[in-house]
Amino acid sequence: MSDILKRTDKDNVAYLVLNDLPANSLTMSMMQAIQQELKSIDEDKTIRVVVIESASESIFCSGHNLKEVKSMVEQQDVQSQKALFSECSNMMKRIQGLSKPVIAKVKGIATAAGAQLVASCDLAYGSLDSKYATPGVNLGLFCHTPSVAVSRVIGRKPMMEMLLIGAPIDAEKAQKIGLINEAVEQNALDQKISQVCKEICLKSSQVLAMGKKSFYRQSEMPLSDAYDYTSAQMVENLTLNDANEGISAFIDKRNPEWKDN
Amino acid sequence: MSDILKRTDKDNVAYLVLNDLPANSLTMSMMQAIQQELKSIDEDKTIRVVVIESASESIFCSGHNLKEVKSMVEQQDVQSQKALFSECSNMMKRIQGLSKPVIAKVKGIATAAGAQLVASCDLAYGSLDSKYATPGVNLGLFCHTPSVAVSRVIGRKPMMEMLLIGAPIDAEKAQKIGLINEAVEQNALDQKISQVCKEICLKSSQVLAMGKKSFYRQSEMPLSDAYDYTSAQMVENLTLNDANEGISAFIDKRNPEWKDN
Amino acid sequence: MSDILKRTDKDNVAYLVLNDLPANSLTMSMMQAIQQELKSIDEDKTIRVVVIESASESIFCSGHNLKEVKSMVEQQDVQSQKALFSECSNMMKRIQGLSKPVIAKVKGIATAAGAQLVASCDLAYGSLDSKYATPGVNLGLFCHTPSVAVSRVIGRKPMMEMLLIGAPIDAEKAQKIGLINEAVEQNALDQKISQVCKEICLKSSQVLAMGKKSFYRQSEMPLSDAYDYTSAQMVENLTLNDANEGISAFIDKRNPEWKDN
Repeated sequence: MSDILKRTDKDNVAYLVLNDLPANSLTMSMMQAIQQELKSIDEDKTIRVVVIESASESIFCSGHNLKEVKSMVEQQDVQSQKALFSECSNMMKRIQGLSKPVIAKVKGIATAAGAQLVASCDLAYGSLDSKYATPGVNLGLFCHTPSVAVSRVIGRKPMMEMLLIGAPIDAEKAQKIGLINEAVEQNALDQKISQVCKEICLKSSQVLAMGKKSFYRQSEMPLSDAYDYTSAQMVENLTLNDANEGISAFIDKRNPEWKDN
Repeated sequence: MSDILKRTDKDNVAYLVLNDLPANSLTMSMMQAIQQELKSIDEDKTIRVVVIESASESIFCSGHNLKEVKSMVEQQDVQSQKALFSECSNMMKRIQGLSKPVIAKVKGIATAAGAQLVASCDLAYGSLDSKYATPGVNLGLFCHTPSVAVSRVIGRKPMMEMLLIGAPIDAEKAQKIGLINEAVEQNALDQKISQVCKEICLKSSQVLAMGKKSFYRQSEMPLSDAYDYTSAQMVENLTLNDANEGISAFIDKRNPEWKDN
Repeated sequence: MSDILKRTDKDNVAYLVLNDLPANSLTMSMMQAIQQELKSIDEDKTIRVVVIESASESIFCSGHNLKEVKSMVEQQDVQSQKALFSECSNMMKRIQGLSKPVIAKVKGIATAAGAQLVASCDLAYGSLDSKYATPGVNLGLFCHTPSVAVSRVIGRKPMMEMLLIGAPIDAEKAQKIGLINEAVEQNALDQKISQVCKEICLKSSQVLAMGKKSFYRQSEMPLSDAYDYTSAQMVENLTLNDANEGISAFIDKRNPEWKDN
């Protein structure tokens, strides 16, 4: 594992700590490192949930590395530019495609592809002083790709304000418009994340994997197709040992013991 | 009509009272009873609006009956499982497809397919102590189908929190994220529902039917198709006697007298 | 330019003032006048942002002119009806398709196609006493077309309440549900609009045009297509002089000087 990304596993949680300070930008190296860890985590049965956070209190993630981008432009290296944005989109899709819930723990500022990263995680909690922006327009490089993820979690009017003006919004506004689940007191964020992880770790990993996949798939279908698909998923889910165990435990008023297979 | 579902008609409003206490679960029998009443209401010209509520103060609806589900699993009766989820999806689609507005009046807790029922109604009002959850993950049976309805009325981040953690949210949060229209003081909920019903009863039933249908249809179309379709609906709407009467009444500054045909 | 629509250009901002008082209705003439100005603005390199407002403090825009509509109905002139709704849809789509950001500045009430106009603008700011309604159902003419625009910026539950009951919502609610960006004190609205315009005027017009177009296009695509499309837009954006200038200025910690071509 590279130094720019630290991974610590504890109590079935994988903490991925962005550690390319001060900017924590999504260089090609950083995105490859994240993807590599996600691939490893996907197959790691000891891991039940992933937290993405920053080694810095002031910057969560600043998006693409502009020096890297500029160098590709100066060398007229269109293939590398394509590869860069492709890698970024793949990483965001991999987060949604991962078989385990992914939580963004945000301190400091999340900008451009950094805000996209927050939006792409299944859950996101930010400290009260965290900030969020899609400021590409200020640099002449519109946040085209970040808007894909962010506009799928917030409404169109606040999205356009973020895109056209490029100013940061604070954590309370981010919560109100739905970009993060909750804005939490600075000194309570660790505890909030622990609590959410603990709750998720109580579930069957297999059921979480199935549910996460079906949720994102149905979200792109018309209503009737979505019902056909998820009804079939319900029947499929009932074939799992953990459904049998969970329902029995509920009826017997005891805690379930998951087999996770 | 079965005892598990009571229907009372008053002042052009049909009140469907879920009465299979204590859980008010959506057994196959309950869903068939609801569908039968909805079919009857659809053709009943005296009914202008439908309210779905519970005979209990503490449970609105607890979703599928887990004993019924478990029995189907134990008997390896996949056909019955398919029929169960199909009946549920059909019921939810029938609410949207009904020619009259349907209002959820929520006291107590609405969980899993019960939360799906709230989301599927055109309007929903809950008492301040009402609660909402998609807790299937706690039983090893992910809320695949409930997520279809709920995710079409709330944002993705609060949806994922409800799905992955499975904890109930309170009425004020449900209002903030858009799952219900309003959280109302316990002793004011009856009056709120009466007022909403009274206002809807003042409209032309025919126009409401046309509008409700066009709204849900356009909501699944790309923008340009949606405009083509709804523009044609506008022209069609203008051929109705009630449009003529309504516009004339507006211009003449008098109350309209609907013909409803 | 017609008297019913006044245009004033100042500091690279085009102010379109609806001036067909008292109702400021969207007659065929008004919609043609607006479209004509939008066409002219689209090609006018001195204009960087558009504000749509009303000459009245009490009415922003009351939607279609019901006398005009009634006359078409009485004459059984279906072609004119089709043309009217087609012109309206085209105007709304033109606002989204315009190469420059369009801001609704709302004082007073915005009803039916007037609320649609607010929803169709990229940004919207309203005074605290502004109101918003889709009240067609009260006249027997459901707000089919307005629902297209409004339901793409607010959630389904508040949308259905507006459509089925037809009552106005106030500015604070409009902000909460996402119909407007912000509800502003009456005497602070001018300043708010000036500030937003000033901020947008600091951006590259060319980049804004490209970004606005890509945003609306991607918003109608499935996630994976949206990423493919916007990734290509990123690479395309990097070929612009202004991207080069903006990124260089950012790295050099100086203000960018846009070429806008």
